[in-house]
Amino acid sequence: MSDSFQFTLLKNDGDARLGRIETPRGRIRTPAFMPVGTAGTVKGIWPHDVRATGADIILGNTYHLMLRPTAERIHALFGSLHAFMRWDGPILTDSGGFQVMSLSSLRKISEEGVRFRSHIDGSEHFMSPERSMEIQNLLDSDIRMQLDEVVALPASIEAQAAAMQRSLRWAARCREAFDAHAAPGRAIFGIVQGGVEKELRAASVKGLLDIGFHGHAIGGLAVGEGQELMLAMTEYTAALLPADRPRYLMGVGTPEDILEAVARGVDMFDCVMPTRAGRHGQAFTRFGKLNLRNARFADDTRPLDPGNPHPALGQFSRAYIHHLVKAGELLGQMILSLANVAYYQQLMDGMRTAIEQGRFDDFRRETKAQWAAGLPD
Amino acid sequence: MSDSFQFTLLKNDGDARLGRIETPRGRIRTPAFMPVGTAGTVKGIWPHDVRATGADIILGNTYHLMLRPTAERIHALFGSLHAFMRWDGPILTDSGGFQVMSLSSLRKISEEGVRFRSHIDGSEHFMSPERSMEIQNLLDSDIRMQLDEVVALPASIEAQAAAMQRSLRWAARCREAFDAHAAPGRAIFGIVQGGVEKELRAASVKGLLDIGFHGHAIGGLAVGEGQELMLAMTEYTAALLPADRPRYLMGVGTPEDILEAVARGVDMFDCVMPTRAGRHGQAFTRFGKLNLRNARFADDTRPLDPGNPHPALGQFSRAYIHHLVKAGELLGQMILSLANVAYYQQLMDGMRTAIEQGRFDDFRRETKAQWAAGLPD
Repeated sequence: MSDSFQFTLLKNDGDARLGRIETPRGRIRTPAFMPVGTAGTVKGIWPHDVRATGADIILGNTYHLMLRPTAERIHALFGSLHAFMRWDGPILTDSGGFQVMSLSSLRKISEEGVRFRSHIDGSEHFMSPERSMEIQNLLDSDIRMQLDEVVALPASIEAQAAAMQRSLRWAARCREAFDAHAAPGRAIFGIVQGGVEKELRAASVKGLLDIGFHGHAIGGLAVGEGQELMLAMTEYTAALLPADRPRYLMGVGTPEDILEAVARGVDMFDCVMPTRAGRHGQAFTRFGKLNLRNARFADDTRPLDPGNPHPALGQFSRAYIHHLVKAGELLGQMILSLANVAYYQQLMDGMRTAIEQGRFDDFRRETKAQWAAGLPD
Repeated sequence: MSDSFQFTLLKNDGDARLGRIETPRGRIRTPAFMPVGTAGTVKGIWPHDVRATGADIILGNTYHLMLRPTAERIHALFGSLHAFMRWDGPILTDSGGFQVMSLSSLRKISEEGVRFRSHIDGSEHFMSPERSMEIQNLLDSDIRMQLDEVVALPASIEAQAAAMQRSLRWAARCREAFDAHAAPGRAIFGIVQGGVEKELRAASVKGLLDIGFHGHAIGGLAVGEGQELMLAMTEYTAALLPADRPRYLMGVGTPEDILEAVARGVDMFDCVMPTRAGRHGQAFTRFGKLNLRNARFADDTRPLDPGNPHPALGQFSRAYIHHLVKAGELLGQMILSLANVAYYQQLMDGMRTAIEQGRFDDFRRETKAQWAAGLPD
């Protein structure tokens, strides 16, 4: 435990980085994958089981929590999102901006902020940089994200530039609000915007460095531009960011996306994919992605992944999980959600060990070859 | 562990009985509640968590398993339902008759058995006493139930008598099939039928005793006759049954039903109520039944039941569970399903201790008073 937020870069292996973040609520080993706890729960997984997968930190969604049960209620009753949901490690909260733009209705954006209606009950709300920081402060998250403006790609260069510039002005307001209220040891990350335009990305980084943040997120990617362009922009942006602060690629992604982004210098990730796929009968494994609904598994008595270290997962056969998925049983969703988060953590652990040993490129090649080879007979 | 199926009546307290069943797969403390694992899973609960509630035995549904994944597949791949679903204690299987009558379509009943169509895919199947015993033998359950014919109440006395007599003829065929195939240490229970007619119940008991079974179930109750009549028929029937064999009241029931039936000499119970209620936001507790959807819990930071001994349950607040239920989160269903099964087991444990101490009547009165008093402020 540490009294302050502290990132230590332990080792480079090519552009891949091994690091450690110390926070008052515990340490985060990087590269790190943060399971998404949208509405105060990592869907379908007991909190102690999330922890047992090796997750050091989870993500909470400001938009969902501000609407229900409200940040004010969580703060008044429990003092923190951690106490509310019984997660005793660090939590990163997003700004709420992404969900405001993708889930709410009747949005009206101005320089001041965004007026919108809840997707749950139609009630009217206002999200500004100051309001986002207020909510995240009420939740007392350990890492807080600035409010930014994301444009869906493709968009005109003018639209991308305008959103980037507004995001910088909002970044300054967020930093100011954070400094006025956050407890010691909490951190705020700025978000690099600029779409797929290098000059805009560079200008965004410069603006964020002028303000000063504990870490940097690469935002506005994985929104439809394709993996190749996403990785190219990630590589370009990561190289501009200071080495002594963590880098977070928001909302990414598949195991391959994450592996490739670590190779390009990214330290932190979050994605709903492992739990969402688990609820739909899909498993991420060392042998690639499996659809447990497939009839090929009906008579397969082997465990999902004999190499998965989680004790709750080695015991169930593919035939049993196939049956649960076909029968629509909750336990099927529970097993696969947990198995997928466990696999993501196993992948991160493998990357950390490989960087430490100076063999990240080998690990990357072997891991991709094993995905491509698929299940052994 | 025991090589054979052995019931020991340890103590009487009034008509309430403390007992122990030894089976090759483990012992069952009675009075016992068997969580229902319909399709090879106690819905929404990890098998190790079912065990940790104190459950000694669970129930599997022959009808569901014969249709999917099929008893033949379970036997061929795993040898037993236990290995398939990773439950290492005893399992009781029902005969499948009740679900054939309530879930399937196009039923055609004859003396030979029932021809019906699957509610899943419309495929045609045939269930006879011999086929039911064959399926239960393939699942290798520890306690097997005879196939019987249940009539929905109210029904004419002639209809009730005919069903009871056919159930006796089917009982003899089941016993014969069981003896021909079951491994040592497995048990078969006969089912007392006869609706709400005492003479029919008495004739049914006599017929079953003539055939000879390891235990007796009281069937055909809790099908719409009301609690008072259900308990009266239970009391009447239990008194006719031999003291040296376990008595099982099928499909019952609420905590109060179970408490009152134990007071009338019943040893074993099963019901989907704890898990079904849990999936619908309801909790069974020492303070009665709670609807966690209710707004009164939105600001209640206390645990569901501070006295619940299960470590996973004392930690979550009512406010958090209320939030999960309102948000439709899987974890809400998981917490409440587990909490309810844990409470049922806590209740059984309380009854066993009370009988042992010769204070069952006090326990019964105190328990009902606490339910009636509701949640303390």
